Amino acid sequence: MNSNIKLIHTNIVYSEDRNRLAVYTDSYIVVEDGRVKGIWSELPEEYKNLPMKDYGDAVLIPAFSDLHVHAPQYLNRGLEMDLLLSDWLDKCTFPMEAKFADAEFAKLVYDAFIDDMIANGTMHACVYGTIHTEATSYLIERMNSKGIKGFVGKVNMDRNAQADLLEDTSESIRDTEAFLEKYSGNKNTKPIITPRFAPTCTREQINGLGKLGKKYGIGMQTHLVESIWEAEQARLLFPECSCDTEIYERAGLMDNGPVIGGHFIFPSEDDIRILRMYDGYAVQCPDATISVIAGIMQTGALLDRGMKIGLGSDISAGHHIGVFTQAARAVQLSKLKEFYEPEGNRKISFPEAFWMATKQSGELFGGTGSLEPGSVFDALVIDGLSDAARKLKPEQVAERFCYLGTKENIIARYMNGEELSQAL
Amino acid sequence: MNSNIKLIHTNIVYSEDRNRLAVYTDSYIVVEDGRVKGIWSELPEEYKNLPMKDYGDAVLIPAFSDLHVHAPQYLNRGLEMDLLLSDWLDKCTFPMEAKFADAEFAKLVYDAFIDDMIANGTMHACVYGTIHTEATSYLIERMNSKGIKGFVGKVNMDRNAQADLLEDTSESIRDTEAFLEKYSGNKNTKPIITPRFAPTCTREQINGLGKLGKKYGIGMQTHLVESIWEAEQARLLFPECSCDTEIYERAGLMDNGPVIGGHFIFPSEDDIRILRMYDGYAVQCPDATISVIAGIMQTGALLDRGMKIGLGSDISAGHHIGVFTQAARAVQLSKLKEFYEPEGNRKISFPEAFWMATKQSGELFGGTGSLEPGSVFDALVIDGLSDAARKLKPEQVAERFCYLGTKENIIARYMNGEELSQAL
Repeated sequence: MNSNIKLIHTNIVYSEDRNRLAVYTDSYIVVEDGRVKGIWSELPEEYKNLPMKDYGDAVLIPAFSDLHVHAPQYLNRGLEMDLLLSDWLDKCTFPMEAKFADAEFAKLVYDAFIDDMIANGTMHACVYGTIHTEATSYLIERMNSKGIKGFVGKVNMDRNAQADLLEDTSESIRDTEAFLEKYSGNKNTKPIITPRFAPTCTREQINGLGKLGKKYGIGMQTHLVESIWEAEQARLLFPECSCDTEIYERAGLMDNGPVIGGHFIFPSEDDIRILRMYDGYAVQCPDATISVIAGIMQTGALLDRGMKIGLGSDISAGHHIGVFTQAARAVQLSKLKEFYEPEGNRKISFPEAFWMATKQSGELFGGTGSLEPGSVFDALVIDGLSDAARKLKPEQVAERFCYLGTKENIIARYMNGEELSQAL
Repeated sequence: MNSNIKLIHTNIVYSEDRNRLAVYTDSYIVVEDGRVKGIWSELPEEYKNLPMKDYGDAVLIPAFSDLHVHAPQYLNRGLEMDLLLSDWLDKCTFPMEAKFADAEFAKLVYDAFIDDMIANGTMHACVYGTIHTEATSYLIERMNSKGIKGFVGKVNMDRNAQADLLEDTSESIRDTEAFLEKYSGNKNTKPIITPRFAPTCTREQINGLGKLGKKYGIGMQTHLVESIWEAEQARLLFPECSCDTEIYERAGLMDNGPVIGGHFIFPSEDDIRILRMYDGYAVQCPDATISVIAGIMQTGALLDRGMKIGLGSDISAGHHIGVFTQAARAVQLSKLKEFYEPEGNRKISFPEAFWMATKQSGELFGGTGSLEPGSVFDALVIDGLSDAARKLKPEQVAERFCYLGTKENIIARYMNGEELSQAL
């Protein structure tokens, strides 16, 4: 046996499928070359001589994936949360993003953002930068060197925002191409094409990005039908398209790699048809959509139609960088959705929410988000969630963690099979 | 000057009125005999020789009030949160409450509950026990000895629940009278009459409680129009009453002291008229009402009509014992309320939510919940919420604490002017 084998003893919970948690009490998990080899209640003879890490009553779960997050808005989290989208963009978001012209400022923020993300158990992420190439380059380099599997986009926008956030269209395409070229060979964190959203992008810009997508074989993230206002703007600014999603489809932006559509709260049947056709992800960001955006995704109904759905912290429309909190919030919001719009909607279960936040979204990042054999071992050990008067079952620990946990409940973190230093 | 004077230097935030936070940067607060004497940016000559506690960049805020919480459900928090009210009552809540026939078990739970409440910054509370006199007596004695200002009710229920939670009606009245008599002289935590809610109480029981209220001059807490189902049950079981609230009014239960109505999500005009007439509090429990109860209080509209509103953690329909988290959630839900029911509803501001959780509800407990001169000094020092790259203003710290804070951000707690030991 070589030194790339690790043995851990504890309780284990992961999503077996959309509706069911796999629960292993008092069990052994073997990790070989960064991937799960197997889980046993009795340790097989061949592993008996391995040094064992014993977490006792704690619970091992997969690390989380954040499918929609704005790194430059990190300093704004939990502030001015009583504004609504358009005011909030103008007063908080755009002025903050403009500061990322200063690469030194960006470094400070991005270092803190990345550390906090990992501290909160997120090891895979689809991240928005700003229009600024230097700042966004630092972000992708730093995430890549920290081992975070994911995608980072240099944001594109050439209309309808404050002047210092608007790009010259051809310069925007040139900068984006340089960014894609420079980082497409990254091992962990790869570039992704990121038109902000329809209201701030011209057809010329989107078409230019479509050509880059094809040339480099790179996918796209954007905000899709995130608000009634945004959906209306899309129709108004792109009258040749039947829906928001078609704007990107027409430019060929959905042909080349993963497609990640943030929010997806007010889709038409055409939006749903197109996003499903390209096997794209719709990203629910529960806190964001009840803070600065009003509306709730039809999560249960879309899951039942086979839509891929992940969760996003959406810092800083959402306030908490831990995606685990959004699994709890997704369950809560599904009940309100059913209450207010009973037609066709249903509440989702906790196992469904956990699955969206781990296994379903982990598939985007090369077979992680699970602890079944063969999965990349990106995992968290959580503890301190039982009460003295009541010992919880492992699946109850996982649920309480999503509702009540903090990063302090994460007592160990593994990435690609290696334990991360506690000094985050 | 005597030893009952304390001097603290830091930043200070409290609710000046419903719409405005009072903010004092880099200031001095003097506390005399447990009450705020004044706040100064330059320390007056007479206090210059006092020993000073300096919290530097931290922020001093009032302690919070929890106007609706079930102590016996403490162990259930954050579990089975994907159920809805009736299933959740039958599967989780009632079986847990039945265990409080065992007073030894109750002590373990209530000790943990009280410590966690204080750790999370709540120093005033309206608390439900169970039907069990011995367990509930321990709860009120313990809260009283810990200095928590508040009310504890022995719960009354004599129909429509599992057999071991149903009381014989006359025994229920006798037990309640003994409880009221024994504890009405308490200094901090006083007894309150607590019919669970209309579906589980007979007219005979409610009338009997009404007589006790009058005899002892004691108020009432209950669940009022918390769900469509509950409002319907009230009409069905008490056809002589025009609304849920009238059931208690008719029994004289609203004539004798504070009236606290939990949830108040589906009030008729009659419910609103009656509760306002008796100057009662409606209690919004945001997380609870989007977890096991579906619905959102018309908070903004009721505030504009002069209704007193406080916030409740509603453990364990709500999952987080910190009322500060519910101030954030109240803002979020007000936006959804406006989105789904625009007629007459509006979003509330963060200052309004903070005011409900501190000053407005603190009035119930003898002039606390504020830091204006004369207020009882129940206060928290919060810290660790700014970023290295951005120092927040004190009012921003208060907002971020409500959205993102944990008990670890509370670095000191004062009750009646005395600092509490850190060993909670």
